[in-house]
Amino acid sequence: MKQILLIGIGAGDPDYVTIQAVKALNRVDVFFVLDKGEVKQDLVDVRQEILDRHVDRPYRVVEARDPERDRTAPAYAEAVHDWRRRRADVCEELIRAELADGQTGAFLVWGDPALYDSTLAIIEDILARGAVEFDYEVVPGITSVQALVAKHRTSLNRVGRPVQITTGRRLAEGFPEDVDDVVVMLDAHNSFTGVGDDVQVYWGAYVGTPDELLISGTVGEVGEQIVATRAEARERKGWIMDTYLLRRKP
Amino acid sequence: MKQILLIGIGAGDPDYVTIQAVKALNRVDVFFVLDKGEVKQDLVDVRQEILDRHVDRPYRVVEARDPERDRTAPAYAEAVHDWRRRRADVCEELIRAELADGQTGAFLVWGDPALYDSTLAIIEDILARGAVEFDYEVVPGITSVQALVAKHRTSLNRVGRPVQITTGRRLAEGFPEDVDDVVVMLDAHNSFTGVGDDVQVYWGAYVGTPDELLISGTVGEVGEQIVATRAEARERKGWIMDTYLLRRKP
Ligand SMILES: C[S@@+](CC[C@H](N)C(=O)[O-])C[C@H]1O[C@@H](n2cnc3c(N)ncnc32)[C@H](O)[C@@H]1O
Ligand SMILES: C[S@@+](CC[C@H](N)C(=O)[O-])C[C@H]1O[C@@H](n2cnc3c(N)ncnc32)[C@H](O)[C@@H]1O
Repeated sequence: MKQILLIGIGAGDPDYVTIQAVKALNRVDVFFVLDKGEVKQDLVDVRQEILDRHVDRPYRVVEARDPERDRTAPAYAEAVHDWRRRRADVCEELIRAELADGQTGAFLVWGDPALYDSTLAIIEDILARGAVEFDYEVVPGITSVQALVAKHRTSLNRVGRPVQITTGRRLAEGFPEDVDDVVVMLDAHNSFTGVGDDVQVYWGAYVGTPDELLISGTVGEVGEQIVATRAEARERKGWIMDTYLLRRKP
Repeated sequence: MKQILLIGIGAGDPDYVTIQAVKALNRVDVFFVLDKGEVKQDLVDVRQEILDRHVDRPYRVVEARDPERDRTAPAYAEAVHDWRRRRADVCEELIRAELADGQTGAFLVWGDPALYDSTLAIIEDILARGAVEFDYEVVPGITSVQALVAKHRTSLNRVGRPVQITTGRRLAEGFPEDVDDVVVMLDAHNSFTGVGDDVQVYWGAYVGTPDELLISGTVGEVGEQIVATRAEARERKGWIMDTYLLRRKP
């Protein structure tokens, strides 16, 4: 039987890696890397640093070209599903051709594989097709959400109250019902500017990395500063990854 | 200046501890432990195992009696706030009397300090009172939520959709609006039994520990099995900690 590990490596600081992940890394014969063809060299560096520091046995790295996602498609979920299908084709071929029976392959996932990441769904798709057989395990990792609130030294939830994690796209449709603490990911459009000046925002970009940026205050006080800081950082580095917690009065 | 670290140690498996937490543990002169006076010896053991395995410098452990929470009070938030105030009294005294200037003290927090844990709020309360001065840092840890979904090998969210984390008390008031993936913590009353037979449930108790229990299926299929398993486990061990993800059709 082939074995596949989905290993969460944390979302920024190489030290977010867990002992469980380190042990998992040391079981791996082949690491599969989908090359995004983008210039996120910093993320590649974090991954390499983790392998260099913590793996003390020989391993192979196999890279494949990550299929492009159609970012112009109006139907978001469909575009993502289509992209996932094409990624599944690529990953299926990697597992079939590059991993021998009895060997262990791994995908390193930014943050936690359970949060806004498609690797787990791809693995399930491949198994459902039935062309290759393998067993798989998931190793959790520190998410960008946890990194964000730790750096801001604030809680995710208030006493006995819920917290919701959602996307910029959803927030743009309105502040969610029945919940006053909302974490927003995957927001390319500063959707927090529409939630009201009184709402508290804890914003962070590149959290846990040397480029980390943190801003907090009410949207009225710091909204424009976040918009400007975000635009400037995105321009300077060529890409950005940012997340924020919104906290409104109950 | 005194330094206080709030270190998330993960929620079950000692190997959930991160490298960042291990480094933080090795900066600590005094570990503060609030003794719950309950028989959760397993949790104490996990903590001790982490210290034994990863700390290689001398340290002191100072224990204090954790004040009792009034579990009969009808107003949940008020009861928790009152309890927090009395815990703040105890912790303030620990930091004042047991930590010298220039020393580092730490509270080890189960899971992540940002999720349904009061240590961070207590630290803020103590600082707001102004009687002792110190600086503090938060180190994130793997939550029981992440441990749960990793073991079930499922995602927290579906593509482009939100996920909410809430309490058993809140779920008992109804399934939250506008969200179909809901994680429930702190549920003493099997509140999932009221959400409808079609809803998918991923349940776990003592996740990451040798006593781990996992059950999944629709509420109709496995609801009674979870209720029975939970009651039996709680009886056998004297206490239980369980969490579940509910996934309903959008
Ligand atoms: C595809 S999701 C992956 C999330 C990841 N699995 C996790 O556990 O954090 C990418 C989004 O995560 C957030 N993100 C990831 N790393 C981040 C970081 N270091 N700082 C801020 N946000 C980050 C951003 O919102 C970004 O749009
Ligand atoms: C006071 S909260 C603390 C949560 C913790 N800070 C975390 O990050 O998971 C306690 C609740 O966490 C959940 N929990 C903690 N550890 C767990 C475990 N190992 N397995 C299942 N649930 C757990 C249960 O829902 C329990 O009622």
